[in-house]
Amino acid sequence: MAASPTPAPLRPWTEDLPNSAKVLVERDGLAVPFREIQVTGERPLRVYDTSGPQGHDVRDGLPRLREPWIRRRSGDATPTQLWYARRGIITEEMRFVAIREQVEPELVRSEIAAGRAIIPANIRHLELEPMIIGRRFLVKVNANIGNSAVTSSIAEEVEKLQWATRWGADTVMDLSTGTDIHATREWIMRNSPVPIGTVPIYQCLEKVKGKVEDLSIELFLETLHEQCEQGVDYVTIHAGVLLRYVPLTAKRVTGIVSRGGSIMAKWCLHHHRENFLYTGFERICALLAKYDVSFSLGDGLRPGCTADANDAAQFGELETLGELTPVAWKHGCQVMIEGPGHVPMHQIQENMDRQLKVCHEAPFYTLGPLVTDIAPGYDHITSGIGAAMIGSMGTAMLCYVTPKEHLGLPNRDDVKTGVITYKIAAHAADLAKGHPGARDRDDALSRARFAFRWEDQFNLALDPVTARAYHDETLPADGAKTAHFCSMCGPHFCSMRITDDVRRLAEAEGVAPEQATAAGMAAKAAEFRAAGGSLYT
Amino acid sequence: MAASPTPAPLRPWTEDLPNSAKVLVERDGLAVPFREIQVTGERPLRVYDTSGPQGHDVRDGLPRLREPWIRRRSGDATPTQLWYARRGIITEEMRFVAIREQVEPELVRSEIAAGRAIIPANIRHLELEPMIIGRRFLVKVNANIGNSAVTSSIAEEVEKLQWATRWGADTVMDLSTGTDIHATREWIMRNSPVPIGTVPIYQCLEKVKGKVEDLSIELFLETLHEQCEQGVDYVTIHAGVLLRYVPLTAKRVTGIVSRGGSIMAKWCLHHHRENFLYTGFERICALLAKYDVSFSLGDGLRPGCTADANDAAQFGELETLGELTPVAWKHGCQVMIEGPGHVPMHQIQENMDRQLKVCHEAPFYTLGPLVTDIAPGYDHITSGIGAAMIGSMGTAMLCYVTPKEHLGLPNRDDVKTGVITYKIAAHAADLAKGHPGARDRDDALSRARFAFRWEDQFNLALDPVTARAYHDETLPADGAKTAHFCSMCGPHFCSMRITDDVRRLAEAEGVAPEQATAAGMAAKAAEFRAAGGSLYT
Repeated sequence: MAASPTPAPLRPWTEDLPNSAKVLVERDGLAVPFREIQVTGERPLRVYDTSGPQGHDVRDGLPRLREPWIRRRSGDATPTQLWYARRGIITEEMRFVAIREQVEPELVRSEIAAGRAIIPANIRHLELEPMIIGRRFLVKVNANIGNSAVTSSIAEEVEKLQWATRWGADTVMDLSTGTDIHATREWIMRNSPVPIGTVPIYQCLEKVKGKVEDLSIELFLETLHEQCEQGVDYVTIHAGVLLRYVPLTAKRVTGIVSRGGSIMAKWCLHHHRENFLYTGFERICALLAKYDVSFSLGDGLRPGCTADANDAAQFGELETLGELTPVAWKHGCQVMIEGPGHVPMHQIQENMDRQLKVCHEAPFYTLGPLVTDIAPGYDHITSGIGAAMIGSMGTAMLCYVTPKEHLGLPNRDDVKTGVITYKIAAHAADLAKGHPGARDRDDALSRARFAFRWEDQFNLALDPVTARAYHDETLPADGAKTAHFCSMCGPHFCSMRITDDVRRLAEAEGVAPEQATAAGMAAKAAEFRAAGGSLYT
Repeated sequence: MAASPTPAPLRPWTEDLPNSAKVLVERDGLAVPFREIQVTGERPLRVYDTSGPQGHDVRDGLPRLREPWIRRRSGDATPTQLWYARRGIITEEMRFVAIREQVEPELVRSEIAAGRAIIPANIRHLELEPMIIGRRFLVKVNANIGNSAVTSSIAEEVEKLQWATRWGADTVMDLSTGTDIHATREWIMRNSPVPIGTVPIYQCLEKVKGKVEDLSIELFLETLHEQCEQGVDYVTIHAGVLLRYVPLTAKRVTGIVSRGGSIMAKWCLHHHRENFLYTGFERICALLAKYDVSFSLGDGLRPGCTADANDAAQFGELETLGELTPVAWKHGCQVMIEGPGHVPMHQIQENMDRQLKVCHEAPFYTLGPLVTDIAPGYDHITSGIGAAMIGSMGTAMLCYVTPKEHLGLPNRDDVKTGVITYKIAAHAADLAKGHPGARDRDDALSRARFAFRWEDQFNLALDPVTARAYHDETLPADGAKTAHFCSMCGPHFCSMRITDDVRRLAEAEGVAPEQATAAGMAAKAAEFRAAGGSLYT
């Protein structure tokens, strides 16, 4: 495997997100981060910010925001957000996310108590800025990172984390499979403002040197304990890959495509015994409850192509995840459910409907889905379509897909493209769901666009630097950024300029559009002509 | 405005689409083009091909496929596909598209007769390979090209046409606004195997040197006649921008964003008279019927931001387009209806429902829609999401959006990205609609993926060269392309390899998956162990 060249260090975030300031909103003793984008002639636009405190030495890690909160709870046997929520307690984490989401803390508490939302927040992850995953809240985006044998250093992994969160990743999964897996994760945890998820079976497999048959519940619990101690916030557990489901995949076009799923299937076949993650599920619950590590119940049998979507294997596993959900809740554990993969558009709704039904409304966390298989190299797009749709239907978090999916390991550009594509999907879903305030950024950008405030248009964009660069390719002069037309149409054909005149005309004497009847318009037409031969002056 | 550097000439299409051959399917005296992709161990996969005859000198133009068909009909007063279809006549064009779509010619005829589909095919465009736009057929993609003052030569415009159709554009709109508008269009027509659409009001505006108020129905008909003679296949006519709708746009966030719409709105305001395209509509019909130029009834009041979606102006205009549709049909003219723009996901279905209802099921042709406004630089993606959705709901053709939308003029890479994104959206919609044969390519690619036939996977992709390049970034060795694992997981974690073993296990003795009960599995587990310590040999 070829080593990638070491990427250049990250530049300051203000160069990627210009004309912005990080602000801390102080309320009830909490300081909650936002980013404020300066907008000409308007109040700064405040947007959700996932990038965390900046400028800290990675060797020191981030400030331990949650240390005092956790210290006060040190006597609690089941220190999980679910346990508190059910007892009517509103934790600092709940208040923190309520401010971030601009909702009432009681909504946060009640959704968590009902199992419809989770705050993945290991009591050992003190650096975390809490966030919530649930369908009454903003749709979230996960980005995967992870070293592979020779391609990355630990410093690079931390940079990947910082890079993904700069562009808006709400959680990051560390899928490292190399040898430095423990040390890499330690650096990531201490420098992560977002929840970190893992797939512990990967590390177990490293410990048995790739011999799947040597895996066991004891080894798994030991590894899980190690990760709980480090502060991992949620873990993918493929407890739904039951022995009886494995043959259901034999006639599939692409069989089992989840790594964890195929590992557990192989173990089941080898021993002809039931999946130890299933039989040992309550032992796992007992461990996770002590740390408030959330379950991400893994979809080891998700379809790897559209032909395999919504089949007996996929939905069988989903039912098992639904059966395990109340078991985890009984232990006080928070739970989300993993889903999709490759699903054609007309089969997406069925996934959402079934998940809500059989998994008792636990939050859904889906990969894409990819809505067609024919575009390797563009699977951020094939999956962004499905992600936006399933997000609008109620999926709480979307796992990103990069352009390299199916082809190779993503580099920094791919990670950025994947995150931005998924921020688009998540935001489109927020708009469709009518989330309070979701429209504000669209409307601010649209106003800037109509008024030819190019700088504001760039700054309000998800990716200001790219927007500016594209503009400058055809109109590089600085003057062009204040011009009342652009390279697409030129001054002759500029619809926006004409519209501006139309608006002034209709509003000149306080005439509301609905009153601008034929009679009213006649006067205005005269006025319009009197104003001169051209509207472009 | 800066001149773009002249791009390098197009390389041979086989370098972009390797291991493919163009084939002509001969039936009933017609020769219909397809592309056949070679697939290891399977029959070649035949795919729809829009790129036309290759290797012709642009000064000669393409062969005149339709010359004998048109000659035989020379006595007909209304030589339109609609007129023939209503009389029960199946034309060569209808048979041609039936073969392309793999449907019965009678379906084509009856859909055209009902006004639910069109074959845009000017009797003067002899080089055309006919195609059909309607919701019972494959979803189509339009790409826009067009010179602007100093940035392109005529040769470059022909290359843009060839480039867009290479990647799958089904029609091309020539939106040129420069001075060589007539000559440019002549070269495009003579070298285009796909229908060419225009917006004639642009050329009219050039003729009056940008003075909107000097436009008139006479000038318009004269210009339209010139374009009909050249062979333009469909024309956008903004006949629905009525005087009374203009004030409805005054309170919008972004007013009128269609160039044609703003031109007509300005004319209406200046003269305080009704839109001459509306009052002169039957004169336009009479002209178009003589050439079988199809109407694309323009959405001059489409929303330019999500805040303006589905408002009174947009839907008022749509109703007027619905009123004009049967007028055009009465003259024998074929009609499609233009729509969307910027529409959040939850408001898309209403567009489709209304269009079908008020426009009597005439085919819908939409720009995107963009489902959010916050991602300039990525509007191929924001709009690809909306396009896939509205396509699956019944929209017949999708007008592409490039990454440069709102920012600048697309270059060759942008055109390719736009077309491929829209091929994804259209194909995803075909899958969702269950179009016959639509799944074949997905399934062939998925089989190749599962079998680690990397070359086949690349060749079956929408963009083989990009897929290969992404793969080679991490695993460049040629041997890697036959390896039974890839850079994503490495051999340890390869779920596909494990699955292959699971399948062989389940099928070894002809046991169907559903029979592989616990008892059957026990025998298999023993066999599995007996087969050796590793599944990876």
